[in-house]
Amino acid sequence: MHDDIRLKGFKQFTPIDEVLALLDKKIKIMPIEKIKTISALGRIIASDVISPIDLPHFPRSAMDGYAVRSKDTFGASLRAPKHFKIIDKIKINETSNKIVKENEAVQIPTGGPVPEGADSVIKFEDTKKNDDYIEVYFPISPFKNVAKKGEDVKKDEIIISKGTIIRPQELTLLLACNILEIEVYKKPRVAIVPTGSELVEIGEKPKIGQIIETNSYSIASLCQIYGADPTRLGIIKDDEKLLADILEQALKYDIIIFTGGSSVGEYDLIPYLIKNRNDSEILAHGISMRPGSPTAIAIVRDKPVFCLSGYPVAAMIGFETFIGHTIRKMMNAKRLDPRPFVKAVLKRQIPSRLGRRDFVRVKLTFDKEQKKFFAEPIRSSGSGIISSVVRASGIIEISEDLEGIDKNEEVIVKLYLPR
Amino acid sequence: MHDDIRLKGFKQFTPIDEVLALLDKKIKIMPIEKIKTISALGRIIASDVISPIDLPHFPRSAMDGYAVRSKDTFGASLRAPKHFKIIDKIKINETSNKIVKENEAVQIPTGGPVPEGADSVIKFEDTKKNDDYIEVYFPISPFKNVAKKGEDVKKDEIIISKGTIIRPQELTLLLACNILEIEVYKKPRVAIVPTGSELVEIGEKPKIGQIIETNSYSIASLCQIYGADPTRLGIIKDDEKLLADILEQALKYDIIIFTGGSSVGEYDLIPYLIKNRNDSEILAHGISMRPGSPTAIAIVRDKPVFCLSGYPVAAMIGFETFIGHTIRKMMNAKRLDPRPFVKAVLKRQIPSRLGRRDFVRVKLTFDKEQKKFFAEPIRSSGSGIISSVVRASGIIEISEDLEGIDKNEEVIVKLYLPR
Repeated sequence: MHDDIRLKGFKQFTPIDEVLALLDKKIKIMPIEKIKTISALGRIIASDVISPIDLPHFPRSAMDGYAVRSKDTFGASLRAPKHFKIIDKIKINETSNKIVKENEAVQIPTGGPVPEGADSVIKFEDTKKNDDYIEVYFPISPFKNVAKKGEDVKKDEIIISKGTIIRPQELTLLLACNILEIEVYKKPRVAIVPTGSELVEIGEKPKIGQIIETNSYSIASLCQIYGADPTRLGIIKDDEKLLADILEQALKYDIIIFTGGSSVGEYDLIPYLIKNRNDSEILAHGISMRPGSPTAIAIVRDKPVFCLSGYPVAAMIGFETFIGHTIRKMMNAKRLDPRPFVKAVLKRQIPSRLGRRDFVRVKLTFDKEQKKFFAEPIRSSGSGIISSVVRASGIIEISEDLEGIDKNEEVIVKLYLPR
Repeated sequence: MHDDIRLKGFKQFTPIDEVLALLDKKIKIMPIEKIKTISALGRIIASDVISPIDLPHFPRSAMDGYAVRSKDTFGASLRAPKHFKIIDKIKINETSNKIVKENEAVQIPTGGPVPEGADSVIKFEDTKKNDDYIEVYFPISPFKNVAKKGEDVKKDEIIISKGTIIRPQELTLLLACNILEIEVYKKPRVAIVPTGSELVEIGEKPKIGQIIETNSYSIASLCQIYGADPTRLGIIKDDEKLLADILEQALKYDIIIFTGGSSVGEYDLIPYLIKNRNDSEILAHGISMRPGSPTAIAIVRDKPVFCLSGYPVAAMIGFETFIGHTIRKMMNAKRLDPRPFVKAVLKRQIPSRLGRRDFVRVKLTFDKEQKKFFAEPIRSSGSGIISSVVRASGIIEISEDLEGIDKNEEVIVKLYLPR
């Protein structure tokens, strides 16, 4: 038997923020890769992006209308309209080579280039046409209905900064600036190793005492949502040799996640295996949180290794608290926790213990009249009860310095994705 | 020239809610397909899912400890401990064939099956062992540390209802119930047709008057986020024949989106093409919204057809308002708008016009001390200015019955994804 705390309980629990700070010191940033912009949705930009062009690259009309010198419209009124001679008419995808002079107008379409001399565009609907003249009934200001050259983006301007996630709008702006390739951080490759002699593969019929292994699939789904690239490495039985071998194999990945075997029971071998290596450092084993207190986190050969609880709910919370953070930190993301959060009124009092962070599943409802969210804690929430997370919209974290939260107090709810 | 309103402006604008109601009447639900549960993240369940098993399928210990009859612990105290004889010890993945009788205990691991006779488990740490006896110092209640058979899910219970999106937790619960395949709605296939003679492909160098076509890429990204399957069908010039041909081709898809050419300018041909077919119905052309008022929506041969503004920002807002709704409605989703939303305090007054819904891009900040979001409207927000959406966290909708919103008022902000 090892010199350990197994069957005796944890001697001490490390606070979550301390664990995250330790992790942050050890995390290595992922290498950079160049990818096509059109495939970059959801990726994280690895270096500030500078526009090679002005956008738009010419003064562009925002309306179908007439390009004029705005000053020539000054003084126009219904009773005393101003008259403009139509000197040219351009179609879409054409440019006028005329220069607009006093009381002259060029008819242009939406998106058309405003010709030299003109500084503004008056809408069709606001004019009346007589042969090759238009009547204008009110003055327009300079640059009215015109997008100036470079108004959207100026050449050499930083348009998207490092650490930004690419949403549809970032993708669009990059393409509009003719940036077809961009540098992003490689996705961390994550090895997921479910452990436990009681586990059977999905599709098998479990005997009494056996459990269908599902944690690897929930963790893989979370990896996808957080932007990592998961691989499942079989089910490993509670056997030191097998576990040591799979750990060695898993160290080829950027992040290693074990589920099960992290506590202090007789079969909780992984933290001890790690401890006995000469290239490892345990950052925490036993964390002051609930659920998930048996979680162990280590660095082995510079790679973060997480030993999550075998309980499905605790495993998910362990992921969201530590691994999501690690994945995003490895990609230098500005926002380390991508979960949206809302403020809500708590519908029922929740007790908790000082010195421990409690994670409580809640169902959220929105009251349209009061314009308020209400959060209802989900009862019967043992961390083995998967249906409790299915009923939940999100999670409340009760901080270490609180002894519970009263009914009607305001809380922050972190939302599950996708919705 | 057609008998139309081109170059004269819209005669009337349909309110958004009216358009959505018209759409809802016409939308056909997608067919159902059976897919593997492990690949179902983000898909929408097409029929209520019933569990074929109890979960757990045996009474399961939540702790490493001793299975006992709880009533035998009653009266135990530090001064008068109760003694239990260890009659068996099971390892993980084993079951005991012993029946636990008065003052007997079976040592079991976390996840182990609670043997017959016993109803509760007392933790190792709470006992003291002497040879084959343990001492117990306090009473435990029935079912303490035991997940009863069927506690999570009962056989034949509906575990996930139709219209639910599959998050990591739904995926996990399905697998835990040994449901390896599920019925989901097929993803609507979306044809995206960017139109305009002024458009050039990404990578080309646009001349004065030309524009790089990017709307199709932003719309395709949004389709992915909303759960549809986009295909881009070239760039089509403003030519009636070409447009008529591509529309015919696009009608093989479930949803058809044109960008550009939807307004009332000389080159805005698509709504007129649609109107002149004998298998079409225009639901709206001209919508009381800003940006996006020239949007046209039609049903052609039972397929919804959307003509979005060519302006990038207006096209995105048109998508979020009508097409996102349509995609989700076609899949019977419970939540038609998947965007998370938060309540925020407006940092600056925004004017708007009665009878029109205004969409205002805002940057959101969270004040940790006040536990409040603040929304800062983004200035210089012409609907051609892509960088304005890049700076935005989300959108405020100013409803038709308001003339603007004052500074410090509370507003709802719909958030952009991914974060």
